[in-house]
Amino acid sequence: MKIAKLPEEIQQLSTDWHEQGLTVGLVPTMGYLHEGHLSLVEAAVRECDKVLMSIFVNPTQFGPKEDFATYPRDILRDLRLAYGAGVDCVFNPEPKDMYPEGYATYVKVENLSQRLCGQSRPDHFRGVATVVLKLFNITGADYGYFGQKDAQQVIVLQRMVRDLNIPIIIRRVPTVREADGLAKSSRNVYLSPQERAQAPGFYAALLEAKELIDDGETSVSRITNLVRERIENIPLARMDYIELVDAQTLLPLEKIQKPALLAGAVFFGKTRLIDNIFIE
Amino acid sequence: MKIAKLPEEIQQLSTDWHEQGLTVGLVPTMGYLHEGHLSLVEAAVRECDKVLMSIFVNPTQFGPKEDFATYPRDILRDLRLAYGAGVDCVFNPEPKDMYPEGYATYVKVENLSQRLCGQSRPDHFRGVATVVLKLFNITGADYGYFGQKDAQQVIVLQRMVRDLNIPIIIRRVPTVREADGLAKSSRNVYLSPQERAQAPGFYAALLEAKELIDDGETSVSRITNLVRERIENIPLARMDYIELVDAQTLLPLEKIQKPALLAGAVFFGKTRLIDNIFIE
Repeated sequence: MKIAKLPEEIQQLSTDWHEQGLTVGLVPTMGYLHEGHLSLVEAAVRECDKVLMSIFVNPTQFGPKEDFATYPRDILRDLRLAYGAGVDCVFNPEPKDMYPEGYATYVKVENLSQRLCGQSRPDHFRGVATVVLKLFNITGADYGYFGQKDAQQVIVLQRMVRDLNIPIIIRRVPTVREADGLAKSSRNVYLSPQERAQAPGFYAALLEAKELIDDGETSVSRITNLVRERIENIPLARMDYIELVDAQTLLPLEKIQKPALLAGAVFFGKTRLIDNIFIE
Repeated sequence: MKIAKLPEEIQQLSTDWHEQGLTVGLVPTMGYLHEGHLSLVEAAVRECDKVLMSIFVNPTQFGPKEDFATYPRDILRDLRLAYGAGVDCVFNPEPKDMYPEGYATYVKVENLSQRLCGQSRPDHFRGVATVVLKLFNITGADYGYFGQKDAQQVIVLQRMVRDLNIPIIIRRVPTVREADGLAKSSRNVYLSPQERAQAPGFYAALLEAKELIDDGETSVSRITNLVRERIENIPLARMDYIELVDAQTLLPLEKIQKPALLAGAVFFGKTRLIDNIFIE
């Protein structure tokens, strides 16, 4: 497995691969890999000749009061896992090579970026869209793999790809969960044992709402109120938001219209977890 | 010469060309071609195997009170000129195919976009950067050709290409002028005979400043004051701005430091003309 630090090395590698007629899949990550990331690699290995993984904790998608400095990192373990999963090359750049002096260009997907998580993280999706566009250009990838856990991210990126005519296909890969239902996330390591014990209640509440919908409930307020009540009853949980929205525009719905997205963010202590269910 | 209206047609054509090992040059224009545009084509023909010209009056780079609706158009004449100059394919899309319903993504080059022309045209370079990035993605071009007359545009786009790791090389092609020095521009047709007669005074003033610099003057205020005075003495001219700035950051200089850019915008009646001289 090759490891590269400079954008130019990756650009050259990808050009070589394409000249050999090989397809290239990109799995963008912030490292501290878990089975969610590995399921993205698995999908990429199945579909592409060569698989590139980027490992980069991207400063521009963290707010000034967020956890950029403390975000968990373990590059040696990541490299071992990437190698084991079949990654052909890891791109692990330094911030100064991604954002050199005088850096000034940002991509913004209007509207979508301000909804759901965008309300408490106003510049987050601008940072995500910008770094992902850079990674698409650096890697020249034919396919990009993203987890459904970050549903809004995938929707924002799909809009960006369509709008900017980027020649890449985006794949959304199902969320990988712990045995008790908690969505795998690098941030789960922040949770205290008590918080960790209560965190699965978040997904349980979403599942209960899904059952209600499957049973024929169409009132969005009844559905979201159920979830909010369940979250309020988890002692260590503090709700950021729970919303049921159109899965394309992310605009609030009054009555269920498919495809819809039931999504939320919940704090356990200082740790903000997100999760969602697509209603298709 | 092929003529295409849909982004997908161009994407396919460019993929075919690249698979044949051919290089592709892009000349983005808003049509109403003049010799300035044709000099871009000439440079592209010299350097690339295939030359694509886009003709698209891009609505997102016009302000609400600007001349989008009245911008001069003559597509049949343009096609004849493009063919004569050696263009292989013209891309002439409809706004609805460039900005379909739900379109939401914009690229902004901070700082640079707010200086010089950005002061009176606050969203102009956002529109330019966005459409040019789309054209780069649609055409997959290896080289892009832009006129020095739009100096700030070239500087903004070079920054965008570096920042977003776009695999394209940007060429800046010297300004083409009328015999009396007026820079060629599609907007020159707006000028009344009286305005047209006085318009060359703008470039004459820039040239006079250039001589002053060549003679050793280093005080930026003395240089710009000379130009402003000369413009004030043209009866039908109304100055928008005259500035002498760092050619990379576009920040004002106090003492000449090379490379510098002496740039301005001057109204003749309702017609806003721009021109500049690089000090290298």
